[in-house]
Amino acid sequence: MKHLLGLKDVEAAEIREILDTAVSMKKLLRQNVKKLPQLQSKSVITLFYENSTRTRVSFELAAKYMSAATVNVSASTSSVQKGETLIDTGRTLDAMKTDVVIMRHPMAGAPKLLSENVRASVINAGDGMNEHPTQALLDMFTLYEKFGTLKGLTVAIVGDVMHSRVAKSNVFGLTKMGSEVRLFSPSTLALPEIGRLGAKVMNSRADAIRDADAVMGLRIQLERQKGGLFPSLSEYNRFFGVNEEDLKGAKPGALVMHPGPVNRGVEMSGAVIDSAQSVINEQVLNGVAVRMAILFLLTRN
Amino acid sequence: MKHLLGLKDVEAAEIREILDTAVSMKKLLRQNVKKLPQLQSKSVITLFYENSTRTRVSFELAAKYMSAATVNVSASTSSVQKGETLIDTGRTLDAMKTDVVIMRHPMAGAPKLLSENVRASVINAGDGMNEHPTQALLDMFTLYEKFGTLKGLTVAIVGDVMHSRVAKSNVFGLTKMGSEVRLFSPSTLALPEIGRLGAKVMNSRADAIRDADAVMGLRIQLERQKGGLFPSLSEYNRFFGVNEEDLKGAKPGALVMHPGPVNRGVEMSGAVIDSAQSVINEQVLNGVAVRMAILFLLTRN
Amino acid sequence: MKHLLGLKDVEAAEIREILDTAVSMKKLLRQNVKKLPQLQSKSVITLFYENSTRTRVSFELAAKYMSAATVNVSASTSSVQKGETLIDTGRTLDAMKTDVVIMRHPMAGAPKLLSENVRASVINAGDGMNEHPTQALLDMFTLYEKFGTLKGLTVAIVGDVMHSRVAKSNVFGLTKMGSEVRLFSPSTLALPEIGRLGAKVMNSRADAIRDADAVMGLRIQLERQKGGLFPSLSEYNRFFGVNEEDLKGAKPGALVMHPGPVNRGVEMSGAVIDSAQSVINEQVLNGVAVRMAILFLLTRN
Repeated sequence: MKHLLGLKDVEAAEIREILDTAVSMKKLLRQNVKKLPQLQSKSVITLFYENSTRTRVSFELAAKYMSAATVNVSASTSSVQKGETLIDTGRTLDAMKTDVVIMRHPMAGAPKLLSENVRASVINAGDGMNEHPTQALLDMFTLYEKFGTLKGLTVAIVGDVMHSRVAKSNVFGLTKMGSEVRLFSPSTLALPEIGRLGAKVMNSRADAIRDADAVMGLRIQLERQKGGLFPSLSEYNRFFGVNEEDLKGAKPGALVMHPGPVNRGVEMSGAVIDSAQSVINEQVLNGVAVRMAILFLLTRN
Repeated sequence: MKHLLGLKDVEAAEIREILDTAVSMKKLLRQNVKKLPQLQSKSVITLFYENSTRTRVSFELAAKYMSAATVNVSASTSSVQKGETLIDTGRTLDAMKTDVVIMRHPMAGAPKLLSENVRASVINAGDGMNEHPTQALLDMFTLYEKFGTLKGLTVAIVGDVMHSRVAKSNVFGLTKMGSEVRLFSPSTLALPEIGRLGAKVMNSRADAIRDADAVMGLRIQLERQKGGLFPSLSEYNRFFGVNEEDLKGAKPGALVMHPGPVNRGVEMSGAVIDSAQSVINEQVLNGVAVRMAILFLLTRN
Repeated sequence: MKHLLGLKDVEAAEIREILDTAVSMKKLLRQNVKKLPQLQSKSVITLFYENSTRTRVSFELAAKYMSAATVNVSASTSSVQKGETLIDTGRTLDAMKTDVVIMRHPMAGAPKLLSENVRASVINAGDGMNEHPTQALLDMFTLYEKFGTLKGLTVAIVGDVMHSRVAKSNVFGLTKMGSEVRLFSPSTLALPEIGRLGAKVMNSRADAIRDADAVMGLRIQLERQKGGLFPSLSEYNRFFGVNEEDLKGAKPGALVMHPGPVNRGVEMSGAVIDSAQSVINEQVLNGVAVRMAILFLLTRN
């Protein structure tokens, strides 16, 4: 594995290796070992054309916990604005002996384009409405850690699936590992093809959640909702917000998951977010462990 | 001591320990030892909802001089803007195994709120018009280093006391350590309660400065002066600006202090700023030493 | 050598030392050795009053590859905006035991002013229309590496010379080392005095390029083109853009150089940029090596 561009084209064995490596990384994090030598002579650049504190900080800490030289480039302060093409920017960063470029971009396919033009490994940290593979891998790791396997699990994803690269990456990854993925999404937001990828499109929140092992909310991408695809936040909440009553339909002890940042009372009720079943904060820690694993695996040769 | 939120509730013994630890840190800095192992497996996040080059760089260098993994988050590039609550942001950063969150926020009490919701140590780097404890501690360290004690010192603070969290933290800290604090402030800006905290409110610049061991100016918070509490900068300077003549009223060799950045010719004349009695640049170095001490003490267990 | 402010006042022997040190640094980079101990107890601050991803990242990686504590300050997030003078900002950063301040500023002479007021070493990373010495040094290093010497080389610089601090630094540096520098620039943009500095001002692109060892394009400083000194980008390209045909006039195997980021089809055709003779990406790597050499030489005592 040279790059991590999406879970569509990653094989199950590779996913398994990432998850198993993340187990070791998390053990070290739990022991507060946060100065590992693995990336000591490596350099990592975060190249974010969209803001994301959470994802950027998670990657930055993962890289620093393994002693990499880490540099941030964000679009707003970048020479990108001087008219340089994406490929030229990438080649420039690459020429500085960069080992890994972590890229977030509003355009689907941008990380792939970059990867075809550089020697460095490229990690997709979210590209348009395409994929967000490290988020899905941390979700999968969270399930894997709790259940010991992904095989035979039922995962309900409820919310704005169409705009969610997180949902898409999870569908690719989870079905590949033998989980059943059920989607319930605003009909106006339904992604026609996503059902064909192996996920089941459900007709109600209750149907999606029934006997599920995990219930995953999605962040409404308010900033991408220019077209006004649903009437209002409270209407969204009424139809797609997960509440305590819903949760009773799932298996006892089913996990409550959300990629964050969460809009309380919109995608999920506060009670659900803060319930004992919620692993939302655990997901954050798992994100660091999974990203450490990925950085390690991509740079170890 | 788990957090450093303000000097109001810190005990004299704790202040003494910080000052004594800072003595050691400064000795190392003077010897150009700037790679210490103390925070090698620790992570420090600066979370600034207000800009401050000086304070952020001081903390960042302090953390890096002790080998911490250090990550900056500033409000303008932060997911805070995506509607996440302060507590959720804090919990997310906390979940990444962060050891210390250094927070600046325009709202008084924000660092305290954060500290009640995270496992990490929280350091207040300035919250609204409440406190700025590390600035006061570096001021106190500067006095302590020059005079060998804080007991019995007379410190005159001249300027916009009401808007100054620096003044407030100094009043709490210095009086606790046995110094006399005298305040002279624009009457329209006078803080009614601050006198009750143990400081003496004076009626003239000359009265405040007379026989003082140190004269401290304050930065006019131009950005908080929306209400126009004083007529003009030159008027402010005429009544509250410290000049060479004023300084003659203080004890011989009295220290000239200012938290910076200083508005030359407004809060103090250029001659006073650049005089042999001025320890303004020394305060900057002391800031690094004091912050190293605080980071060390909060993370040592 | 205490500071690097420009090549006007640097001696040939000092340039030679930088180039020779850069040879060693590049060898290490090629071997992927990117964790050197040379700046382990040193601190480096990038102080950029103008954006520049490329230059800032290059310096930051150079500093980190040598284990320096590195902190970025950019004008937009800086207390500079609070009315502090340049000198006070510099003195503040200096007081924090900073070893090197790397400064970019829109005003010619700003780094020199800073250097006169601080104890730290100052590196000019571009000041207005004055100099950009590290860019010229990396250009010179690129030539030195390919030809084994700078003596007797002919270097053609084509483009907006008047607004180019890169061109100016190259003229100072290259002529000092025995190269012939030929300039072809829009007549409206011609720098009257630059010919007197030892460069030859040519009357056509063909004359400038004839039998040259290297052809260097310059970035149009679109953001400084307020006065509209040339009619349009396509007109600029027609008269000053270097194309494949032009290149045939140069010596066989002549190097194609550009400081980047390049505006494809304006300053140079895509074919020229991507040709086998192009060393534009090599220049980027050389930039890291040269900056490592400079940081090392300025801090070694």
